[in-house]
Amino acid sequence: MTRSDQGTATAERLATEECWALLESETFGRLAYRLVDEVHLVPLDYAADGHAIHLRTGSGNKLLAAALESDVALETDWRGDGTAWSVVVRGRLRRLEPGEQAAVAPPARPWLDEVPHEVVELVPTSVEGRRFTWPPEVAATR
Amino acid sequence: MTRSDQGTATAERLATEECWALLESETFGRLAYRLVDEVHLVPLDYAADGHAIHLRTGSGNKLLAAALESDVALETDWRGDGTAWSVVVRGRLRRLEPGEQAAVAPPARPWLDEVPHEVVELVPTSVEGRRFTWPPEVAATR
Repeated sequence: MTRSDQGTATAERLATEECWALLESETFGRLAYRLVDEVHLVPLDYAADGHAIHLRTGSGNKLLAAALESDVALETDWRGDGTAWSVVVRGRLRRLEPGEQAAVAPPARPWLDEVPHEVVELVPTSVEGRRFTWPPEVAATR
Repeated sequence: MTRSDQGTATAERLATEECWALLESETFGRLAYRLVDEVHLVPLDYAADGHAIHLRTGSGNKLLAAALESDVALETDWRGDGTAWSVVVRGRLRRLEPGEQAAVAPPARPWLDEVPHEVVELVPTSVEGRRFTWPPEVAATR
């Protein structure tokens, strides 16, 4: 656990398994990926099960990134009164073969419901998370 | 306005000024940036005023990205019952001169309260937003 107690907030680094449990507790995140020199960032639904993450996409950009095996990052977070957490998974996208598509449970209710769509897998290379805690007097003003 | 009515969700593209109004209504987002071949994604507080965006950072990575004038994307979103929106601003980071730092109002309560910190400006090159609407039967299950 690493803490930063300077100023208004306390940040605590989360253990890897806690990061995965939080990822599984949510279905909504944001995916950052790059295409050549451009960074893109889109909200999307995902499904985390075990240490596997699947995304449903109808976006040509995301599929292109997958085809290129581009480096990506997926973030999800939650805020409550006086506390918050954020988890970031980094890795590469992998296009599923048609046979694999049928075997995974895709996110059921996508933000971007484009057709045709494909399910892509995020193959993780790292996961990091932090929990943030604000003292009561600061939390009350947030 | 562009609509996608296939399936469960309706997506509506937002006008530029509506995107800016929504950006100003929030103070919390996620910044995606790249360093060489790596994509990074971090939650942070921001301040949008007019068409100017300022971020407070203590992260060496973010400052390095700023120094490199790397391409970045900032996303903020909101979800309610049956509706949601997301706005993404793309642009480049610019390190403020010491004199400029004093002139801008930084986000007051950073998630990552590291010291020393600096205020950096996101110089926008584009802003895009969408509003998502789920029909009542779908919204009830979200």
